[in-house]
Amino acid sequence: MRPLLVTLTLTSILSAQSPGITGFTSANAAAESEREKRFDSTLRRDNIQQWLKRLSSKPHHLGSPAGKEVAEFVAAQFKSWGYETSIETFYPLFPTPKLRSLELTAPTHYTARLDEPVLPEDATSGVRENQLPTYNSYSADGDVTGELVYVNYGVPSDYEALAQRGIDVKGKIVLARYGHSWRGIKPKVAAEHGAIGCIIYSDPQDDGYGAGEVYPKGGYRTEWSAQRGSVMDMPTYSGDPLTPFIGATKDAVRLPREKAATIMKIPVLPIAWGDALPLLKALGGTVAPPQFRGGLPITYHIGPGPATVHLKLEFDWKLAPAYDVIARMPGSELADEWVLRGNHHDGWVFGAEDPLSGLVPMMEEARAVAELVKTGWKPKRTIMYLAWDGEEPSLLGSTEWAEQHAAELQKHAVAYINTDGSSRGFIELGGTHTLEHFANEAGRDVIDPERKVSAMDRYRARMAARGGADEKKKAHDRGDIAISPLGSGSDFTPFLQHLGIAALNIGFGGEGAGGGAYHSIYDSYDHFIKFNDPDFQYELALAQLSGRMTMRLADADSLPFRFDGFVRAVGSYIDEIAKLADTMRSETVEFNRSLADHSFELAADPLTPYVAPAPKVEVPHLNFAPLRNALAKLEKSAKSFRDREGKANTLSLETRKSLDQALMQCDRVLLRPEGLPRRPWYRHQIYAPGYYTGYGVKTIPGVREAVEERRWAEFDQQVTAAAQSLEDMAKQIDRATTLLAGN
Amino acid sequence: MRPLLVTLTLTSILSAQSPGITGFTSANAAAESEREKRFDSTLRRDNIQQWLKRLSSKPHHLGSPAGKEVAEFVAAQFKSWGYETSIETFYPLFPTPKLRSLELTAPTHYTARLDEPVLPEDATSGVRENQLPTYNSYSADGDVTGELVYVNYGVPSDYEALAQRGIDVKGKIVLARYGHSWRGIKPKVAAEHGAIGCIIYSDPQDDGYGAGEVYPKGGYRTEWSAQRGSVMDMPTYSGDPLTPFIGATKDAVRLPREKAATIMKIPVLPIAWGDALPLLKALGGTVAPPQFRGGLPITYHIGPGPATVHLKLEFDWKLAPAYDVIARMPGSELADEWVLRGNHHDGWVFGAEDPLSGLVPMMEEARAVAELVKTGWKPKRTIMYLAWDGEEPSLLGSTEWAEQHAAELQKHAVAYINTDGSSRGFIELGGTHTLEHFANEAGRDVIDPERKVSAMDRYRARMAARGGADEKKKAHDRGDIAISPLGSGSDFTPFLQHLGIAALNIGFGGEGAGGGAYHSIYDSYDHFIKFNDPDFQYELALAQLSGRMTMRLADADSLPFRFDGFVRAVGSYIDEIAKLADTMRSETVEFNRSLADHSFELAADPLTPYVAPAPKVEVPHLNFAPLRNALAKLEKSAKSFRDREGKANTLSLETRKSLDQALMQCDRVLLRPEGLPRRPWYRHQIYAPGYYTGYGVKTIPGVREAVEERRWAEFDQQVTAAAQSLEDMAKQIDRATTLLAGN
Repeated sequence: MRPLLVTLTLTSILSAQSPGITGFTSANAAAESEREKRFDSTLRRDNIQQWLKRLSSKPHHLGSPAGKEVAEFVAAQFKSWGYETSIETFYPLFPTPKLRSLELTAPTHYTARLDEPVLPEDATSGVRENQLPTYNSYSADGDVTGELVYVNYGVPSDYEALAQRGIDVKGKIVLARYGHSWRGIKPKVAAEHGAIGCIIYSDPQDDGYGAGEVYPKGGYRTEWSAQRGSVMDMPTYSGDPLTPFIGATKDAVRLPREKAATIMKIPVLPIAWGDALPLLKALGGTVAPPQFRGGLPITYHIGPGPATVHLKLEFDWKLAPAYDVIARMPGSELADEWVLRGNHHDGWVFGAEDPLSGLVPMMEEARAVAELVKTGWKPKRTIMYLAWDGEEPSLLGSTEWAEQHAAELQKHAVAYINTDGSSRGFIELGGTHTLEHFANEAGRDVIDPERKVSAMDRYRARMAARGGADEKKKAHDRGDIAISPLGSGSDFTPFLQHLGIAALNIGFGGEGAGGGAYHSIYDSYDHFIKFNDPDFQYELALAQLSGRMTMRLADADSLPFRFDGFVRAVGSYIDEIAKLADTMRSETVEFNRSLADHSFELAADPLTPYVAPAPKVEVPHLNFAPLRNALAKLEKSAKSFRDREGKANTLSLETRKSLDQALMQCDRVLLRPEGLPRRPWYRHQIYAPGYYTGYGVKTIPGVREAVEERRWAEFDQQVTAAAQSLEDMAKQIDRATTLLAGN
Repeated sequence: MRPLLVTLTLTSILSAQSPGITGFTSANAAAESEREKRFDSTLRRDNIQQWLKRLSSKPHHLGSPAGKEVAEFVAAQFKSWGYETSIETFYPLFPTPKLRSLELTAPTHYTARLDEPVLPEDATSGVRENQLPTYNSYSADGDVTGELVYVNYGVPSDYEALAQRGIDVKGKIVLARYGHSWRGIKPKVAAEHGAIGCIIYSDPQDDGYGAGEVYPKGGYRTEWSAQRGSVMDMPTYSGDPLTPFIGATKDAVRLPREKAATIMKIPVLPIAWGDALPLLKALGGTVAPPQFRGGLPITYHIGPGPATVHLKLEFDWKLAPAYDVIARMPGSELADEWVLRGNHHDGWVFGAEDPLSGLVPMMEEARAVAELVKTGWKPKRTIMYLAWDGEEPSLLGSTEWAEQHAAELQKHAVAYINTDGSSRGFIELGGTHTLEHFANEAGRDVIDPERKVSAMDRYRARMAARGGADEKKKAHDRGDIAISPLGSGSDFTPFLQHLGIAALNIGFGGEGAGGGAYHSIYDSYDHFIKFNDPDFQYELALAQLSGRMTMRLADADSLPFRFDGFVRAVGSYIDEIAKLADTMRSETVEFNRSLADHSFELAADPLTPYVAPAPKVEVPHLNFAPLRNALAKLEKSAKSFRDREGKANTLSLETRKSLDQALMQCDRVLLRPEGLPRRPWYRHQIYAPGYYTGYGVKTIPGVREAVEERRWAEFDQQVTAAAQSLEDMAKQIDRATTLLAGN
């Protein structure tokens, strides 16, 4: 005879919407709510404050002594709370600077400071030992001299603006400002255009006094602060450049460095606007068009020259040990189903906000979960807490672990919930849309500390107060809020886009001035408590939010994946791409007409250079039908699944296992084994970081980028691939529906 | 027997489109084209250069010794060319500063320089005698001290943003930046909100290094340059504040100064950003929202305080003699039909660009026309060249003359063609849409000096190269270009909006850096020849354009008014207003919902003050039917007129006179005797300067502003009035059509 526990009333499990908890029977939902109350009361602000202060006291980047101490401290904590804990070590390539030098050599001379000064108001800024200086990891070594060209944000459209003015960067060094793309895109695009070096600076309009008072008076970036960060070609693959697809274990077979596709081809250096100002002032040539103008008190010019700069960079191309902390709480009943919960522990320097403001609430969450377990509760599924090393250089710890354990993860992983830096403000929910309703429910049940309403309601209030007409209406309609599709920028990438595991990336933000210290030595405890979350109240809210998600996934009677939001999202992406193609088609016609009748030339001021652009390839009418047909099937499957939720039924433990497995595989089948064009490591058909945006997501990326890049043959292949994935998902949902019917 | 000259073939007169000239028979069009060639070859660049240099050598504002000299010189020239010339003098109120002082008194001390320094590169900047200092004419006298509040551009929406932050300007002094409205709007709106003083500064983002290199390296505004200008409440009435509706003759009955509605109620002072920076730096309080941020290297704050300023202004409230130069060439056959052509001659200081770059080509045009007359040609209609005094203080010379001669002008005026400052670049055509086709034809027949294509084609090229999708299509379709409706800002206002005379305002621009010297001492000959039109080639092009317009209007066999463009324009304005009402309606619903469910409050950062806004008055469904029905009639009348153009016919001189009169009256009937609500001086139902934009036009102003200001009862009255005017115009067109039929 089967034990009572496995006999479930599906009416209440699956149709339990508000105020219930999806995936739980009414009775179990009530117990879960009760448990969450106890969980909340177990959370301690003191722990968060003390750990944040302790772990941010020394520079703890990958490979640093304090980095190892942090990993060991975190592991020791997990162990002390009762988790099966280990440190798993990988050995990725991690270059650090041996020499950094930047000089203006003509028409005047200036030597860049390249140093973030000690501030009396910021205690750790004086802790100089082991500070990684300002640099971009995976820049090439280089010793280059050339005329300078200011390329604005350094994205492809900026090079179109340059070309129209007859300005070429071949053999030159470009100066780009941070923003409007992930930083790694700037040197990549510069190199594609023939530049021999790339300098990236923080313009005060975007990231300084233009945004708010600078540190220490306010939280924003100061004159001499520069943004460190990776410039690896992460949209090709994340993780160790030498070991794509496999874990960077001690004895892994490595690519020679010159074969590693993701290492930048030219030298790249980040600088502060204090160092950029003399360079920009020395530029002549064309006056920058309005969209190129920043917040410095000068007239921006593009160049090239007369400013000439000498950039010299040398790196120590060593392997560094990455210490991943893996803490495990085995499930009572469905131990083979793993709920993954992660945050990285390495920082560029002190890393108070990034990553500790995400790590420390995860630790407190884990401690409180362990406390609940001590009082007798046992989660059905296995929970794994994961503290990653080497996220900053390019998701090294998470990627290598995900690659190393790919097969078991694809079999066992329920979902991966990621956090990273967090701050005061509004709930932030990104993720796979199969978890959209689940994420909304968790947000519904966390109280915003400032306004004492549900975090989702405060989010809706912002949409209603500040959104466009569409957003205002949606906010007032009070349905589920659309969560953001994920590109990249934190450790969810290998799980979601390489392994097809449903993922969420969550946090709070929008009211702190956290961005002003981003990847600088001023991302410190002092900065955090003054400008990010002074009372740690949003740190507690984050633990409440992520704790609910972890516990609900671990203890639900049936996994809470839902498909209506996914169908809606994918439908909107198809519409977007079709509209994009239509807009490009008509714009191309007008562009080519303007070119043919010399409108561009006639409109140009003869006092500034004009170079005729090349005609654009015309946009044919494209066949979106396979995608729309597949989506129609998916919609039907989603509807059948939803209808079945309302039916009374009982399921055996075995059937529940099969059902969970069927639901887990719904995300997995969105991978295609061949991956995306020119980047096979990225296999997900719905979400990828943009090849030319970096962190920024491209949805249905194979199809969308084929349109954007005018690859019409590829478009048809990619439509077929994406449509196949949607059809596979429909079948997978049908399987789950059949199991629900008790067959 | 009638002389041959009066027997016209209407097929060719009225249907002669490209490449003919509308209003001319084929034969006469050919003669006109021939004459225009001789006209062009008569134009002398040397005259333009020498007059521009001579007239800009001393400060020649209203009431100055050099101002009188300029008027007398211009009159002497006209006389020498054979025009019946007189100087007609009016005596408007014209305050000039006796005392100007601005101090920051807390938290630190700063005394504003309020002075534009001599530049060695600019010869006349050293001519200090009789320079009018930087000030705003028709500011109130005042001696006020108060906390400072930064109000961005100082337009109504900025005060909404302040209110949402709980910031009130009552009893305070506001600091506004130039731009986004006519300057006079800023103190008017400030006073409406209870401010006791207003300072207006030029922010370098809008008007300085953010726009381009500053003078003398480039043409843009320098650190210590301030923009003079009137702050009279010109949207109420233009001209002398003491004599609305009547000419300010010596013995006119004047209002006491305190009864003059258009004199500003609070003291106002313009300053340079060099003087604004210490004030802005001293401001605390709320950090300015993004739309408030300018180009100075600081974090902009709103205040109020701790900055406190002391503003003291005293003026000499004297009457000044305004010398209008009136030069007349009587028509040979239709002497009672007057073609008016004007430009002002007064400048704020040296006024090379504003107004001389418009005045001097008009003089050269007049000289060349007189040369043609000397060779035997006599224009059919009377031509009047008008050089106005006192335009800068608020269209004094033109308004007083128009008021003084209102009755005869309404009877005799064919149209008024205005120019003002002009520069290198693209043709600029503003005006009444009854002259749209006429203006397009004139632009078609002038060659752009830089690109050697028709000026209209270069204009089209810019639309094709830089416009939105709609503009691109229109450019490629090659129909008439829509000319811009006129608000205010130059001398066309009394003719168009008070007297109902068809008007054009024309020039060239878009490539010079003229705006950078606007209303400063650096609007000089040296500045002009370096940055505006170094070879005077666009000055010549302007004379060619305006000369064609003057001669065609004067010599056409039948007046070239056409109505299809007018119908299209008015239709688009009705659509715009209806859409505005719809948008306001749905936005009001969502706004009030957000207020009711506390979304604004919930979305606000509790660290910054929040004050709940008042609910908005709901927008009812509005009855646009009378307007649309009237437009439908107008469209039918316009079509009948157009159909009749194709019919062969002959007309007697008397009938032609009646036809011209009927066509002239088509614009006149767009006036309503009662004028616009709260500003009866503005009587035109289709064009007016906006009550809250100033120079910026509001089309169908009574109706549009009733919607914008939520006056629903007024809306219905104004729809009735505007519809009546359109119906009157339809009848007037029908009258012309009947005459065309030969009856």
